Amino acid sequence: LSRLLSAAHSPSSLLSPLDTFTDRHVGPDEREVSHMLSQLGYESMDAFVAATVPSKIRVASAAVSNESIPSLSESELHRRARELGKLNTPVKSYIGMGYHNAVVPPVILRNIMESPAWYTPYTPYQPEIAQGRLESLVNYQTMIMSLTAMDIANASLLDEATAAAEGMVMAFIAANQKKRTFLVDSGVSPQTLAVLRTRAKGFGIHLVIGDVFSALKDEAISSDLCGVLVQYPDVNGDIKDFGSIADTVHGAGALLVCASDLLALTMLKPPGEWGADIALGNSARFGVPAGYGGPHGAFFACTDKLKRKMPGRLIGRSKDAQGNPAYRLALQTREQHIRREKATSNICTSQALLANMAAMYAVYHGPVGLKRIAEKVSALTQILKSLVEKHGYKATNANFFDTLTFDVTGAVKDADAVHASALASGINLRKVDEKHVGVTLDESVSAEDVVSLANVFASAASGSPVSASDLALPASLALPAALQRTSGYLPHPVFNAHHSETEMLRYIYHLQGKDLGLVHAMIPLGSCTMKLNSTSSMIPLTWPEFGGVHPFAPTDQVKGYAQVIKELEEDLCKITGFHACSVQPNSGAAGEYAGLSVIRAYHESRGEGHRDICLIPVSAHGTNPASAVMAGLKVVPIKTHADGNLDLDDLKAKAEKHKDKLAAFMITYPSTFGVFEDGVADACKIIHDNGGQVYLDGANLNAQIGVTNPATCGGDVCHMNLHKTFAIPHGGGGPGVGPICVAEHLAPFLPGHPVVPTGGSQAIDAVAAAPYGSASILLISWAYIKMLGGDGLSTASKVALLNANYMAHRLSEHYTLRYKNGNGRVAHELLIDLAEFDKAAGLKVTDFAKRLQDYGFHPPTCSWPISTCMLIEPTESESLEEIDRFCDAMIQIRREAEDVITGKQPKDNNVLKNAPHPISVIVLPEDQWNRPYSRQTAAFPVPWLLERKFWPTVSRVDDGEYFVLTYECRAATHLLVL
Amino acid sequence: LSRLLSAAHSPSSLLSPLDTFTDRHVGPDEREVSHMLSQLGYESMDAFVAATVPSKIRVASAAVSNESIPSLSESELHRRARELGKLNTPVKSYIGMGYHNAVVPPVILRNIMESPAWYTPYTPYQPEIAQGRLESLVNYQTMIMSLTAMDIANASLLDEATAAAEGMVMAFIAANQKKRTFLVDSGVSPQTLAVLRTRAKGFGIHLVIGDVFSALKDEAISSDLCGVLVQYPDVNGDIKDFGSIADTVHGAGALLVCASDLLALTMLKPPGEWGADIALGNSARFGVPAGYGGPHGAFFACTDKLKRKMPGRLIGRSKDAQGNPAYRLALQTREQHIRREKATSNICTSQALLANMAAMYAVYHGPVGLKRIAEKVSALTQILKSLVEKHGYKATNANFFDTLTFDVTGAVKDADAVHASALASGINLRKVDEKHVGVTLDESVSAEDVVSLANVFASAASGSPVSASDLALPASLALPAALQRTSGYLPHPVFNAHHSETEMLRYIYHLQGKDLGLVHAMIPLGSCTMKLNSTSSMIPLTWPEFGGVHPFAPTDQVKGYAQVIKELEEDLCKITGFHACSVQPNSGAAGEYAGLSVIRAYHESRGEGHRDICLIPVSAHGTNPASAVMAGLKVVPIKTHADGNLDLDDLKAKAEKHKDKLAAFMITYPSTFGVFEDGVADACKIIHDNGGQVYLDGANLNAQIGVTNPATCGGDVCHMNLHKTFAIPHGGGGPGVGPICVAEHLAPFLPGHPVVPTGGSQAIDAVAAAPYGSASILLISWAYIKMLGGDGLSTASKVALLNANYMAHRLSEHYTLRYKNGNGRVAHELLIDLAEFDKAAGLKVTDFAKRLQDYGFHPPTCSWPISTCMLIEPTESESLEEIDRFCDAMIQIRREAEDVITGKQPKDNNVLKNAPHPISVIVLPEDQWNRPYSRQTAAFPVPWLLERKFWPTVSRVDDGEYFVLTYECRAATHLLVL
Ligand SMILES: Cc1ncc(COP(=O)(O)O)c(C=O)c1O
Ligand SMILES: Cc1ncc(COP(=O)(O)O)c(C=O)c1O
Ligand SMILES: O=C([O-])O
Repeated sequence: LSRLLSAAHSPSSLLSPLDTFTDRHVGPDEREVSHMLSQLGYESMDAFVAATVPSKIRVASAAVSNESIPSLSESELHRRARELGKLNTPVKSYIGMGYHNAVVPPVILRNIMESPAWYTPYTPYQPEIAQGRLESLVNYQTMIMSLTAMDIANASLLDEATAAAEGMVMAFIAANQKKRTFLVDSGVSPQTLAVLRTRAKGFGIHLVIGDVFSALKDEAISSDLCGVLVQYPDVNGDIKDFGSIADTVHGAGALLVCASDLLALTMLKPPGEWGADIALGNSARFGVPAGYGGPHGAFFACTDKLKRKMPGRLIGRSKDAQGNPAYRLALQTREQHIRREKATSNICTSQALLANMAAMYAVYHGPVGLKRIAEKVSALTQILKSLVEKHGYKATNANFFDTLTFDVTGAVKDADAVHASALASGINLRKVDEKHVGVTLDESVSAEDVVSLANVFASAASGSPVSASDLALPASLALPAALQRTSGYLPHPVFNAHHSETEMLRYIYHLQGKDLGLVHAMIPLGSCTMKLNSTSSMIPLTWPEFGGVHPFAPTDQVKGYAQVIKELEEDLCKITGFHACSVQPNSGAAGEYAGLSVIRAYHESRGEGHRDICLIPVSAHGTNPASAVMAGLKVVPIKTHADGNLDLDDLKAKAEKHKDKLAAFMITYPSTFGVFEDGVADACKIIHDNGGQVYLDGANLNAQIGVTNPATCGGDVCHMNLHKTFAIPHGGGGPGVGPICVAEHLAPFLPGHPVVPTGGSQAIDAVAAAPYGSASILLISWAYIKMLGGDGLSTASKVALLNANYMAHRLSEHYTLRYKNGNGRVAHELLIDLAEFDKAAGLKVTDFAKRLQDYGFHPPTCSWPISTCMLIEPTESESLEEIDRFCDAMIQIRREAEDVITGKQPKDNNVLKNAPHPISVIVLPEDQWNRPYSRQTAAFPVPWLLERKFWPTVSRVDDGEYFVLTYECRAATHLLVL
Repeated sequence: LSRLLSAAHSPSSLLSPLDTFTDRHVGPDEREVSHMLSQLGYESMDAFVAATVPSKIRVASAAVSNESIPSLSESELHRRARELGKLNTPVKSYIGMGYHNAVVPPVILRNIMESPAWYTPYTPYQPEIAQGRLESLVNYQTMIMSLTAMDIANASLLDEATAAAEGMVMAFIAANQKKRTFLVDSGVSPQTLAVLRTRAKGFGIHLVIGDVFSALKDEAISSDLCGVLVQYPDVNGDIKDFGSIADTVHGAGALLVCASDLLALTMLKPPGEWGADIALGNSARFGVPAGYGGPHGAFFACTDKLKRKMPGRLIGRSKDAQGNPAYRLALQTREQHIRREKATSNICTSQALLANMAAMYAVYHGPVGLKRIAEKVSALTQILKSLVEKHGYKATNANFFDTLTFDVTGAVKDADAVHASALASGINLRKVDEKHVGVTLDESVSAEDVVSLANVFASAASGSPVSASDLALPASLALPAALQRTSGYLPHPVFNAHHSETEMLRYIYHLQGKDLGLVHAMIPLGSCTMKLNSTSSMIPLTWPEFGGVHPFAPTDQVKGYAQVIKELEEDLCKITGFHACSVQPNSGAAGEYAGLSVIRAYHESRGEGHRDICLIPVSAHGTNPASAVMAGLKVVPIKTHADGNLDLDDLKAKAEKHKDKLAAFMITYPSTFGVFEDGVADACKIIHDNGGQVYLDGANLNAQIGVTNPATCGGDVCHMNLHKTFAIPHGGGGPGVGPICVAEHLAPFLPGHPVVPTGGSQAIDAVAAAPYGSASILLISWAYIKMLGGDGLSTASKVALLNANYMAHRLSEHYTLRYKNGNGRVAHELLIDLAEFDKAAGLKVTDFAKRLQDYGFHPPTCSWPISTCMLIEPTESESLEEIDRFCDAMIQIRREAEDVITGKQPKDNNVLKNAPHPISVIVLPEDQWNRPYSRQTAAFPVPWLLERKFWPTVSRVDDGEYFVLTYECRAATHLLVL
């Protein structure tokens, strides 16, 4: 809050940096803070915090201060990021293993990845103000369906390894959890295997790894088989005819799951054409930077039969109130919220931004362009093979696309000789074993690069070097005739129209114009902490020094990343009060799962592996029970009081009842009702007294920093949503990062990784494909923390509390505030109950939400955690002006509701029920304008909308009916032609 | 046109790069090209070109090919730009002299400078679809008025030096061109002096340089005085009380012109408070990168009395058809179009984008923030002085703000010792002379930097180093009490509301949402060549390696820039067929002026300095005669035939008549009517035969590349608008670059520079402040040319011709095409005549233009070069789909016009007259919807608008009445509060 203060002639301010971040991040300035405090009746911020946060769990103000976390100005941060970037050695990677040097079309880089219009919006749960991203995600789904030839595809999962784990669980469920053997081909990538291992454990699935062709002949396997996972092409580059096992697998009542590669599928017979039930993989090679492992985004597609079991988000087509087609989320939307402990997947935040980038990449290149890329990669790989084999190396691959594994024994002493030669040329190859070296080519590889590569091998074998003129095109493809793709793909207009940069740019802008993001207005979604994603923290992300790094690069080449990760982990430990951190989980839900798995491993290490009960309040976020189930725990719900607080008696009773089997207790703090419960420390004590561990869901950490922390509350482990509290943009539904911090006794169990050593001494297996998860976006949170410093972080939390309380204060005169503490204070969010309007006039939460769209706001979280409520979280980044504007809108809507209650407006035809009002409705001819209010009232109910209005592009989207756009119907409807 | 072809399995395409630029830059693909050719009745592109371009002036297709200009793929370009960037040594500059290390707020960098929404729009001549930029430019004007305390300010000039020259000419004009002495204080920067010298020559102004205080006592000076230019603070850092000479200057009937510094004015008594008539300066220190000299943007402000003489663009406030306030260009809009040879300034393209950045910088910091910055800079400068003086150096400044000049003789042998010490620390200081060294501080300088700086001096003098703890804040300011600012500034709400990044970002997006740019639709402005500004060419621009370079950095530190400039100059010579190039002119008009000045110098060198007649066709762009006048030439107009061609007889007659005094002939080719005239070579011969030189206005060069060139046409010199043909974005009204290419005999006269040697052996004085003009954006054209290569450049021109001819073909069935060649072909643009509609139904060009806005298009150039016409230029970047969409819109409007002609719609109340229709009109209540057509017809006359519509934000803006927003009325109306 130094914006005004610092203008004073204080000597230190004249010598200190001018571009301090706290002033820019925190919305209200000093005057506005004073105003809000005085409206609430407090003399000081301290007095306000004292009334808001229970004293039992307060931490000293020095806990998170500039002493513990010094602050850097924006330009200092920039310089420091540059220095760290230089510590990452630029080495060209041919490591492969599912990660490529993607070529990001510059128009997509700058106008999607670097554009706040695309990275700031929320998950498109409000379809009327999200048709742009919804269309783009439909493009993604269509592209996946088309390339895989599967019936249906979702709008992204976290990464290939977790997608494979989801596939495994689907197979297990499809077999009614009766058959427990899941067979994995030995050609599957090690990181996928590791994540399968972790996940199999929770579900009690029996993993068998081996050659699928022979393993299937084993009766012991086939009789208990629920599914088979193959990789196509496999990690060594081989392309096998897995279609030949499809009948056997199906005959055994099992599913055939195929991990694949989108680029290869432009040339290979797709899994949908040879009997796969599920196809999945990483879509990052379609224009998403390597970024030291992520964020990337995995695709997931299956047969029509399986669609209702598919995890993740699916976009379908429905219609709006005028009967016009409109996209919306469909099927398992927030599955875990509904199914809770019956869920088998906890996926929530996924990889929307990266899925959009990949979809746009396909729009930009089209089928012809993609084919061209694949053919070049494939041809260069063939050329490389023949050049390398001249020196006595032998490729082990019969058929291949872009990856070769060379047996080096005919040419050199061991693989090290080749790796040394490569490194001398600034090249990384895959370290397979002593005798084998792997090479993977990609779109970024030029003919000159192939010459350099060939010479790496030549030089190691003391052979004579080749030059560009030695490159001769192969006579035929290295793909087996039977596995060559004959079917077309991507015939849809959208993939065949926007190939000039001008058209592409306009398509991007056309879509973004339909979507409301933080660039337009507050997105006060409770539990989601939609705060400023500052430019300074976003800039380093797309520097090649960070974007171009392979996750399995030798650790001495990634010292910049190592330092960023180390500093971030340390700072997160300071903030949470914990001892150690793992940044591997790539979403909040993944963090929950990782944390619970750590708890299980801890119990096991003490011979208490039988502890499998997890207590979870009924008010918990749906991911909590879902994660518990995935970690092999049994969920026992705990009641909450009518005032929103945890029922400590119930907790005590259940804890004692399950004393011997108590594994964990999961609690969100402040609660999902937005209250700092007094009893949190007591609750934790109860758990510990009964042998359990406490998992603190840190989604609401933004309320805590500098005033309390999860350790002080009594937790043993917590996850954080870096995409909430620590300013990673929501990306329209991801990416996210869900690191976990743990107390000292849990540190040994933090997740490991099969390729790059991470985690504790008794590490659980990996929970994500990459060793540091979505590594590149860790830079954002690192920068956020460094720029705010401890003081700024604490200020941010306090202002977040203040903004919410000021809003509660204003709104409580017009609406029923559902929960508050003894002093009348809420935490960082507030829950208002709209039940009375339903009773009085049939007005639902949705009607209020949709009407808010007409006022230019994104509605708050609706009907969660209570169906009749709205959960509103303004965050610290919103200014008083914006908050007042929002309150004014809510109050005006309250008046509009009153008109319905009093009968001034009919119950079935009023501004709320008919909301939102897009322009297509506003222009209706007079004879169709059958509404008892004017167009102005519909569109401009308050004067400031005349100057500043965001328009929904469709009217209310039907949330009942929808249909899923399969490959064919999409092509047929031509919905996407501009 | 390789997009589809290259998909074939041609061996070379499999080995060559995939990310070739021509495919992305050129809108139509091969199929679309074929379609257009067949519609026009040609079998091949060659046949089409043969029918379009006169054979006499055709060049061999090898003239501009990949042989002469090899092409780089997008990623190769990126790598090459990186390499060149590394050749610019990173040295911290304290050189000053009007150039600073600006700190660009990241939110502005990314969302304005790097955003196509801001850099692609055209100059806001269509106010209904440009209210965003207009508001921002009003912010700029307001900021300038407020900080200078002048009555009125314009929306930017090119740079401080040319702004000073405009000030000088205004003074000369104000004195009715009777008094010829212009006195310049010796504290004025050398580059300003150099440009004044050039400009004084053309107007016959007598420049006197010296100490103004004593010079004014000279009767010879004061009796002939038209104006005085002072610099405040001056180039050496001194702050003098020029208010003391105001009465004397005014008493002599002259104007007092003050070059100043915006940051200093936050602390210094502003020029408007001590009698200056004009205040001007560079506004780049408000958040615009140094960029090796530009583009920057100069401000220009004057007293109310002088406002009608003020050059450049001025935004005023008017009202729209509903009576709502709306901004629009006012006063001297394209003065030169109206006044032609009576004009005294040729400014056309200015620096809109950079003015917007500077305005946004003030919005972001507000008065309090700006003051804080100034106070810090000032305090650190004082600290530096005391630290340095400890070692025997002596500052020559009595009063100073941010700049010190040290006499080094008391400490070291000579200045070189200090410069050597500086360089060893990676620091550049100003080289004043043997005994003096200059230091200028700015916003980027930290306390640590001051320590390093002090130690440069200490070390040179073998003194003991200081450390941070030695920094003590000065007790008082170094500004003389009488010159300290006491008045406030920037009280306007807009400068006091958007200080958090969230608010700032939303303000930027709010404004950009009102403006139509290339991100939305075609901007088919004849003569303006609004083509794709590719992301690849924009990216390097904002790398610090290019952005952070001072224009006067020693040449051995700027080898990267040198290489870019050399390659660009060479390529431009290849393209034009000329011998040498100067990139110094920073707009097309500046290029004209430079070229004509070179011609004059050439004549002088041959003892023919008396040649002062310039023949100019009546159809020429208004800048041509204006530039001629500025270069001291007398304009003789040449007729054109009814068919648009030059009247060769008239040309011959006039050339012969003025044989002895003929200096030059200016011609635009293809003509401003969009036709390749057959007679161009003959015309040039006539001029040469009569002793004149031919100036070819290259605004239309996009029609020529690879098919003809200015040298082949017979020219001696031409300018190019890099912001047209070579893809520098128009920036909403600038920046631009207008380099000139010349034949060998003119090369010696290319413009020089007083600080950094440039130009020929007999160089004319500088025409711009920086040696290479707007150096940083040269990167864009360099990249554009390198990525297309010669083949791509030729293809681009041919497709530009084809697109225009296809459009002419489609439209000529519905509209009167005014000019075409014998084969029925136009060049790269087409002129349609709407006179018949005025006659038949009173429908004017404007009515058609405004109606086009309703269809989502930016109107073409209107009423120029013929008042009843539209000049339409699609460029090569538009796809067939977009061109057809535009034609469909025009044809539909033609039908709408027919309804007026036939009386179906009243003459005074119809969709054309009432256009455009913003939403505020569409929602009018029924009783106010007094129109004989429906809301749908108004807003959605064709179905594709339902999906893709750009909304004008105001209805038709009155182009008669307006008022200029002075400082006070602006503050009072609060127009900008959101
Ligand atoms: C309380 C709570 N816990 C967990 C999560 C899950 O986080 P993620 O969406 O990153 O998986 C959320 C997300 O909204 C949440 O609000
Ligand atoms: C034919 C012609 N000449 C000269 C110019 C002046 O160029 P600039 O605006 O860059 O000064 C223009 C600009 O529109 C033009 O069209
Ligand atoms: O599920 C949520 O993303 O809140």
